Amino acid sequence: MIVIMADESAAQKTLAKAKANHIEHVYASENRVGFAGLKDIDEVPFINEQQVVDVITNHPAAMQVSRAFHPTDTVIQTPHSTIGGQNFSLIAGPDAIESAEHVLAMGQAAKAAGATILRGGSYKPRTSPYSFQGLGEQGLIWHRAAADALGMDMMTEIMSPADVDLVGKYTDIFQIGTRNMQNFSLLKAVGRQNKPVLLKRGMSATVDEFLSAAEYIASEGNQQIILMERGIRSFDQKYLRNTMDVSVIPVLQKLTHLPVLADPSHAAGVSEHVSPIGLAAVAAGAQGLMLEIHDQPAKAWVDGKQALTPDQMTNLFAKANAIHEL
Amino acid sequence: MIVIMADESAAQKTLAKAKANHIEHVYASENRVGFAGLKDIDEVPFINEQQVVDVITNHPAAMQVSRAFHPTDTVIQTPHSTIGGQNFSLIAGPDAIESAEHVLAMGQAAKAAGATILRGGSYKPRTSPYSFQGLGEQGLIWHRAAADALGMDMMTEIMSPADVDLVGKYTDIFQIGTRNMQNFSLLKAVGRQNKPVLLKRGMSATVDEFLSAAEYIASEGNQQIILMERGIRSFDQKYLRNTMDVSVIPVLQKLTHLPVLADPSHAAGVSEHVSPIGLAAVAAGAQGLMLEIHDQPAKAWVDGKQALTPDQMTNLFAKANAIHEL
Amino acid sequence: MIVIMADESAAQKTLAKAKANHIEHVYASENRVGFAGLKDIDEVPFINEQQVVDVITNHPAAMQVSRAFHPTDTVIQTPHSTIGGQNFSLIAGPDAIESAEHVLAMGQAAKAAGATILRGGSYKPRTSPYSFQGLGEQGLIWHRAAADALGMDMMTEIMSPADVDLVGKYTDIFQIGTRNMQNFSLLKAVGRQNKPVLLKRGMSATVDEFLSAAEYIASEGNQQIILMERGIRSFDQKYLRNTMDVSVIPVLQKLTHLPVLADPSHAAGVSEHVSPIGLAAVAAGAQGLMLEIHDQPAKAWVDGKQALTPDQMTNLFAKANAIHEL
Amino acid sequence: MIVIMADESAAQKTLAKAKANHIEHVYASENRVGFAGLKDIDEVPFINEQQVVDVITNHPAAMQVSRAFHPTDTVIQTPHSTIGGQNFSLIAGPDAIESAEHVLAMGQAAKAAGATILRGGSYKPRTSPYSFQGLGEQGLIWHRAAADALGMDMMTEIMSPADVDLVGKYTDIFQIGTRNMQNFSLLKAVGRQNKPVLLKRGMSATVDEFLSAAEYIASEGNQQIILMERGIRSFDQKYLRNTMDVSVIPVLQKLTHLPVLADPSHAAGVSEHVSPIGLAAVAAGAQGLMLEIHDQPAKAWVDGKQALTPDQMTNLFAKANAIHEL
Repeated sequence: MIVIMADESAAQKTLAKAKANHIEHVYASENRVGFAGLKDIDEVPFINEQQVVDVITNHPAAMQVSRAFHPTDTVIQTPHSTIGGQNFSLIAGPDAIESAEHVLAMGQAAKAAGATILRGGSYKPRTSPYSFQGLGEQGLIWHRAAADALGMDMMTEIMSPADVDLVGKYTDIFQIGTRNMQNFSLLKAVGRQNKPVLLKRGMSATVDEFLSAAEYIASEGNQQIILMERGIRSFDQKYLRNTMDVSVIPVLQKLTHLPVLADPSHAAGVSEHVSPIGLAAVAAGAQGLMLEIHDQPAKAWVDGKQALTPDQMTNLFAKANAIHEL
Repeated sequence: MIVIMADESAAQKTLAKAKANHIEHVYASENRVGFAGLKDIDEVPFINEQQVVDVITNHPAAMQVSRAFHPTDTVIQTPHSTIGGQNFSLIAGPDAIESAEHVLAMGQAAKAAGATILRGGSYKPRTSPYSFQGLGEQGLIWHRAAADALGMDMMTEIMSPADVDLVGKYTDIFQIGTRNMQNFSLLKAVGRQNKPVLLKRGMSATVDEFLSAAEYIASEGNQQIILMERGIRSFDQKYLRNTMDVSVIPVLQKLTHLPVLADPSHAAGVSEHVSPIGLAAVAAGAQGLMLEIHDQPAKAWVDGKQALTPDQMTNLFAKANAIHEL
Repeated sequence: MIVIMADESAAQKTLAKAKANHIEHVYASENRVGFAGLKDIDEVPFINEQQVVDVITNHPAAMQVSRAFHPTDTVIQTPHSTIGGQNFSLIAGPDAIESAEHVLAMGQAAKAAGATILRGGSYKPRTSPYSFQGLGEQGLIWHRAAADALGMDMMTEIMSPADVDLVGKYTDIFQIGTRNMQNFSLLKAVGRQNKPVLLKRGMSATVDEFLSAAEYIASEGNQQIILMERGIRSFDQKYLRNTMDVSVIPVLQKLTHLPVLADPSHAAGVSEHVSPIGLAAVAAGAQGLMLEIHDQPAKAWVDGKQALTPDQMTNLFAKANAIHEL
Repeated sequence: MIVIMADESAAQKTLAKAKANHIEHVYASENRVGFAGLKDIDEVPFINEQQVVDVITNHPAAMQVSRAFHPTDTVIQTPHSTIGGQNFSLIAGPDAIESAEHVLAMGQAAKAAGATILRGGSYKPRTSPYSFQGLGEQGLIWHRAAADALGMDMMTEIMSPADVDLVGKYTDIFQIGTRNMQNFSLLKAVGRQNKPVLLKRGMSATVDEFLSAAEYIASEGNQQIILMERGIRSFDQKYLRNTMDVSVIPVLQKLTHLPVLADPSHAAGVSEHVSPIGLAAVAAGAQGLMLEIHDQPAKAWVDGKQALTPDQMTNLFAKANAIHEL
């Protein structure tokens, strides 16, 4: 149940009373108070009825991330980026951090192309335990140094609640990968941090499951969440690794106030089709793109097949900006 | 096996000799001869080896529709439209033909928005036998009259080989629906006609199956084939009927010389998301769009939920053209 | 709307009156009258209300095949087989008819193992137009002769409404393949015949779509329909061609009175896994199995990879019978 | 690369030398030595070639869990159960631990029906953060007490690496849920424990991904792994929550030596279809079943819709045993 109150002050007072009454799962946003576990205004007799403007009971289960709870677009501010709303964000970088020099060079290319966020993995979720698992803290150090040198934000993946402090010491944005979309322990852990979280959609996650995963983060107090579509699993994997579900972008944007970005690199899995797929996502309304780049894709430590060269990225970002302008 | 010969004349001679030798499934395109059933040049001892430039054996099973057989884009010419290559085609009209007046009014709106092909169903594939099945020949007559009055091409769906003559008497383009993509009797029947065929992708058809279905049409002599992506079946149907697979557009365009268009109306299933999904398809490279329109969607006889109003169509076509220009 | 009446005579009288009143889509089964297009008893003022026992309005869209219209199991009688209810039916034979001798030999093996229906294709739906398409009428003749010689029923696939008379001259049971499950012209054509139809589930057909396809046949007057699950399309095709959906068997049996059989050969696509998958279908409640057999699988003209040898079939049928007994 | 050596002693010597040479990812099983990162015998010059019987290079990426590394069935021994090989294991219990009395009562019913493992969740992975998340350690205490009182094994789900010590203090078997199949931090954490791990297949995990997830556990030293199929995500969720993929059971059993069990409760999602689906899994070769039970399903705290009553469980287990005997 979401109660729309006369003003923010009334909402804050109601929130305080609810907590004093030991009501669980209650949250406020501007002049709204959301009671995630209640469905009837009679369950909150302490509320000042004269200040109740409206009561919404048919909101999505993922209450806090819904537009019923927060009608306007969430805009997330990081040191070097503004994400969401009418802004268009570009994230780029290597799949895995390989060396101080390499991440710096890739960051320079990314920045030149218009990116403000430098991505790169130091903890890599690999299908096989025998594949390269990432450089760990050494990678974080090089990644941070490159971001600082370039005046960019750093974004990197986190795979375990135990790594929150370590990764949080370096990164500006936590990335949660597709395989961990319903790793609820991890979602709660980043939900207790005061840094933005980029949450990728699970490989076969429904819209409702995706939003509920974001709600896990919000339920712990962190509303700085960026959603990312990265391709779903479908029945034909002969030519492409995944199927970019562009349709989900307008569907999500109607339901949630959170920014929705897209990752065409993982959706395609092969570099030659990254560009049209990325442009499609932008045309569908994506508020930003994330790209994997490498100067020598054939020598990339991880996923070189899907990496664009810096030139290809620059070309794609230019077209993407033009479509976003339209 | 595709044999590239010195010139078209050499190819035609080889074709003639192959037929004289009772070789099945042999076709020529410009200076190329395709032997769909053979894999070794030694199987065609009658060929003039001096005129053989190259032999391709690793072509797709759907040989004639592949770029290995015909490297350049196929461009299809109808009385009022040029489809494929760098052209951008707009097809619009009601889901079902309802009356002479209605199809004419919808055609006027479609033409005003830039469409050159007027679609509409007189034979409707409905999930239930008790749903409206189309007006039959009466619908064809009204549809033809509207197209003639407006100087547009007529396109309508055909559901049975038995209807080829009747439908062919009226239509400019045969449409094969998603449920009939592997209705091989029907594919062969339209393959024997001298009119373009628009073939929709099956709901869960792989790329290879889609191309092989087109090959059925080509194998009977009709190379005027237009491919259309219209959304695949996926695991989440709560908010949208199907999942528009934009990624398949560049994949197909690499493999085949046929035009690839998109149908966002059926992909979305709900009108509010037709526009972003259609624009995404265009950004991915679709060489045209097909839209369902209705002046009073709530009163449409079939699929009103997904119909755009004429104004919405006009708006979408304008944006689609802008993206195609980029 | 289904109206339960006092007795069969009352139902027949209502049916006659409805037809006299030009009501479309009205059918009777024992003491029930189904009005597929109506939802309110007031729409049939001619009905004798004193003979109305009950009115069901929340039945499935596929009315005639639902248990709401016909609560007890449909049992289909062919010259040599009784299919449905507590009966357990075995269908076997080669994928394609190859010769008079071969189909006879396979039929002998099938009969010895307990099969009463001899299957085999003379019209083959192949992904590629260049693959063997079946022997046509010659195959039908050999197939019929083998069935007659062995005292078995003949079952063969039909691919076009135009073939109904020809195929119907020979076969005891029409088979509709997975690719034609929503070939509505074909469904209507066999619906006008007085012979049983075995309808395979489409590769990605929902339960409701499957039942509605069967309803197309029933809507033309033919209630002798056998449903067959044959594996659905899923995301992993590395080890098996399809995914046998055993769960659909009890779901269908709850919803419909029609017999539900299973085809583990096509579900598996590789012979080594046909047996466990077939037994699973029987344990889930399948009222029969269909198997593809070949004495020399490696030399089979079509789909040899999934063919069992006669010995493997015999072994599987014995186990299947034992599970069915439980 | 797997090297088959003359005997176990030779394998152990090779393993020791490999470790002395700082070769990563090397493991031994009886007379076999697996080098997960190497592909050529020349890369291990220290090996005694006279004791090399054979070298296998085309093994699955998930090397240790493959039959190439360990040809015979793994049989896992817990205090009260023997799992794998020809054994047939029954696991039952409530979805969530609700109280000391309730888990004891459910355990008594489970044991009476033939179960030796008492399941129950104290840490529950729920789609929504606002749903009941489990009783935590209090649940573990009650669960352990019930298992001890009944002479059964305790099995419970673990959701975070941080909980390994706490959960491990109580449970006999760690359960990893479908959403965590690729939670690699968690897999590594239980891989360092000396207790069996039951690993559920991810909702859309391929066979190779499933085996690689098991390999993560094995790569840390824990070979006591039980695989469980629990239904995959498919395109039709109207009547059932998931689609039990029985075909994967024989496929897995051919590829891996690990026990393969099935969970029909989650596959069905509704109790009325649990039984046929469970029997199907057994007929396909499952080496055991896991069932959720509740004496008052309508009052269950979690997932009551899919819970069987104790009587239904008893009935199902009796039939399952009969099919397994066949």
